[in-house]
Amino acid sequence: MSAHIGVTGLAVMGANLARNLARNGFTVALHNRSVEKTDALLARHGQDGDFIRTETLQELVDSLQKPRRVLIMVKAGQPVDSVIEQLEPLLEPGDIIIDAGNSHYEDTRRREAALAKQNLHFVGIGVSGGEEGALNGPSIMPGGSKESYAALGPLLEKIAARVDGQPCCAWIGTDGAGHFVKMVHNGIEYADMQVIGEAFDLLRSGAGIEPAEQARIFAEWNTTDLASFLIEISAEVLGHVDANTGKPFVDVVVDAAGQKGTGRWTVISALELGSPTSGIAESVFARALSSQTDQRKLAQELLVGAEADIEVPATFVEDVRQALYASKLISYAQGLDMLTSAATEYGWNLKLDEIASLWRGGCIIRADLLKEITKAYAADEKPANLLFAPAFTTAIADVLPAWRRVVSTAVQLGIPVPVFSSSLAYYDGLRRKRLPAALIQGQRDLFGAHTYGRVDAEGSFHTLWGEDKSELDAVDTH
Amino acid sequence: MSAHIGVTGLAVMGANLARNLARNGFTVALHNRSVEKTDALLARHGQDGDFIRTETLQELVDSLQKPRRVLIMVKAGQPVDSVIEQLEPLLEPGDIIIDAGNSHYEDTRRREAALAKQNLHFVGIGVSGGEEGALNGPSIMPGGSKESYAALGPLLEKIAARVDGQPCCAWIGTDGAGHFVKMVHNGIEYADMQVIGEAFDLLRSGAGIEPAEQARIFAEWNTTDLASFLIEISAEVLGHVDANTGKPFVDVVVDAAGQKGTGRWTVISALELGSPTSGIAESVFARALSSQTDQRKLAQELLVGAEADIEVPATFVEDVRQALYASKLISYAQGLDMLTSAATEYGWNLKLDEIASLWRGGCIIRADLLKEITKAYAADEKPANLLFAPAFTTAIADVLPAWRRVVSTAVQLGIPVPVFSSSLAYYDGLRRKRLPAALIQGQRDLFGAHTYGRVDAEGSFHTLWGEDKSELDAVDTH
Repeated sequence: MSAHIGVTGLAVMGANLARNLARNGFTVALHNRSVEKTDALLARHGQDGDFIRTETLQELVDSLQKPRRVLIMVKAGQPVDSVIEQLEPLLEPGDIIIDAGNSHYEDTRRREAALAKQNLHFVGIGVSGGEEGALNGPSIMPGGSKESYAALGPLLEKIAARVDGQPCCAWIGTDGAGHFVKMVHNGIEYADMQVIGEAFDLLRSGAGIEPAEQARIFAEWNTTDLASFLIEISAEVLGHVDANTGKPFVDVVVDAAGQKGTGRWTVISALELGSPTSGIAESVFARALSSQTDQRKLAQELLVGAEADIEVPATFVEDVRQALYASKLISYAQGLDMLTSAATEYGWNLKLDEIASLWRGGCIIRADLLKEITKAYAADEKPANLLFAPAFTTAIADVLPAWRRVVSTAVQLGIPVPVFSSSLAYYDGLRRKRLPAALIQGQRDLFGAHTYGRVDAEGSFHTLWGEDKSELDAVDTH
Repeated sequence: MSAHIGVTGLAVMGANLARNLARNGFTVALHNRSVEKTDALLARHGQDGDFIRTETLQELVDSLQKPRRVLIMVKAGQPVDSVIEQLEPLLEPGDIIIDAGNSHYEDTRRREAALAKQNLHFVGIGVSGGEEGALNGPSIMPGGSKESYAALGPLLEKIAARVDGQPCCAWIGTDGAGHFVKMVHNGIEYADMQVIGEAFDLLRSGAGIEPAEQARIFAEWNTTDLASFLIEISAEVLGHVDANTGKPFVDVVVDAAGQKGTGRWTVISALELGSPTSGIAESVFARALSSQTDQRKLAQELLVGAEADIEVPATFVEDVRQALYASKLISYAQGLDMLTSAATEYGWNLKLDEIASLWRGGCIIRADLLKEITKAYAADEKPANLLFAPAFTTAIADVLPAWRRVVSTAVQLGIPVPVFSSSLAYYDGLRRKRLPAALIQGQRDLFGAHTYGRVDAEGSFHTLWGEDKSELDAVDTH
């Protein structure tokens, strides 16, 4: 018997992927640095399917059909390089190394290029859905060569989540494309979680609605165009009562959220691409601010709040729902726009309809909305921005008045809505005929001779500010 | 005759620093890769003081007093490494290489560490004020060893801008501290320019005030607590009429601003430090959005605007002024908070009063406000956040109602105010007793077993969401 695929690194994620593969009829060779983990997995879940126990990477490699498929699931960073280094001399041209961890796409690009020189395929795959998804059907975003996908895709598509009969897995693009798309997925996830938090805060602080009642409201929202995994679990969390105190669970949890990892990477990459991903940035910074607990404690004592004693509109709950939908849509629009920029930058032919489609199931941001997004990008004429797809142009126009009311009310009540308001600023900035960037260009030309363009002429220009304020063609200025 | 300092790289910035040094009585050895630039400088400005012409780096080094001080002013990145590589074998222990360009502080840290092994000092200095400042008195932020500052500081303090008799130059801290502080200066500059742009847009689009009239208003604002170089030049730019068309200058300039460089670096560094620098991030993204001209054109046609037909308040102009002051203050608070985080991360003993003091003159963000900021950090008890200094707690309380009115009005009118609103969200988030981050922690625990803290107990916890929802000490979860 020889195995279809080998898995090395059998912590929860690796073990669950291995079990998922075995349950789907594949023979899986198992390896872990310490053999105890391998044996524990076999003892508890050996009946899931056909496993081959190995003790060394050499044994693992020897047990595989050719071309060999070796999936690594170890901590991102140096450990991945270390395993690759050990595997490389054991493999033959045409074999495939798969990194299923949360690696940075630049690392994946580097590794792919290095291994390609040895005629080895290196495939970085993004896997979303957590431990549960890894076992029962994750959303899978594979990068690497198209050739490697021919040998690997059938296995991945078999173990992926399915929506409407289609697997939530498709070849994304060469080298780091899979990990890049997974990173942006996580960035959108950050924003999605933050806007839900803002909606919760608005309902609580603006309208006095307690968590138990909010659980009911969120469950109801989950039957609307907001329907999604994150809304569903928010209802569950909001409805949960702490057994120790009898208080709502959300009231006994420390309100400080970590911001390390992929959310941060997404914003850094957006900055490098010059892609305005402000909603994701605000959600990462909102977590950073929440973690500044010492400063927050002092600020509560020192800083003045809102004077306004305003009534929220009678339509407030539905207004908040619509504002949440709008802000969520902007996060997707910004994330997808970033993918468009990255495709150009890295030479990836990203198919946004396929990407939206494979996010429909298995992953954390799975949502009904993604069906519409898939349709929008499957159209013959691809929209240059998600908001330009007719369905979404209309959808956002419908919720715009409520969105403005909610942000305006929040500002008057002193409820922080960083992503609701940032998303609205993006929307209004995008559609604006003239932006004050013209004044900024004037300032830059004055203090740094940075030059500017004219609306009525080609080329770039510089005004002699300190002199007679005449204008020069920029070619004359240096 | 031997020179006090050598300058290599005689483009405008290097030439102007060399002239500034010579005008202040120092003998300056000049070097440039192509000797034509050296000769041009000597021909045009040789009368500025004592210069020594050299043709090679060996000649440059030979002409210097010991310890030798060699100032490099070449393009940031590889060119700096290249010059260092050529200089290194020509120098002796104790000599000082100075990089006065806009280098990334991580590069400076790397270079400093490498040269320290050769017993050479490497000093990265941030220089702000543009070409004009370099010649007549810039703001100077030197890093590197304290020992090197003893040999170099007197020269730098002599050529720096002066305010109230004090030089705008002081030793910042070891290795990359000078370039780091310069980077954050530039980040604040981005935000400062953007909030001025938002004020301009509000007055124009909200109250119909034309640029010529705004020039008068900005000049008036320059006599209030907004007084600053950027307000002053904004008045000049707004008042300028384009000679070709007779239109306001800001109406003929293309409204697309670039976002490369130090603004971007600042946000990336803030993300890595976990420091909430949302105002600077929004200002960088506002420039990115302004540059998406193709999308903006389509958006103008497709996206619906604001319905609201609201009157702006009678106090609108003064409201905008106060909102501008508040948003500007937040940018400083965020930038300075980032310096506090960096000091801990990199082991720098940053003196925020000295830093604020040296920004008072010579640099782009010079402003009256910095006198108050200097005072706030010179107090015996340093505020943990600029807003906690009594003067600023009061100042922001005074303008808070106007700030809320302006953001609320902008949102209803559809005028994008990304930094005004983001700054307000930061202020309201900072002072909030409970943030919705608690819900986010609940979500993360549910889908990823990330665990959470409790407000009433030490340690971290995990709820068995899929099971009976009992709670475990996190040590039990894996």
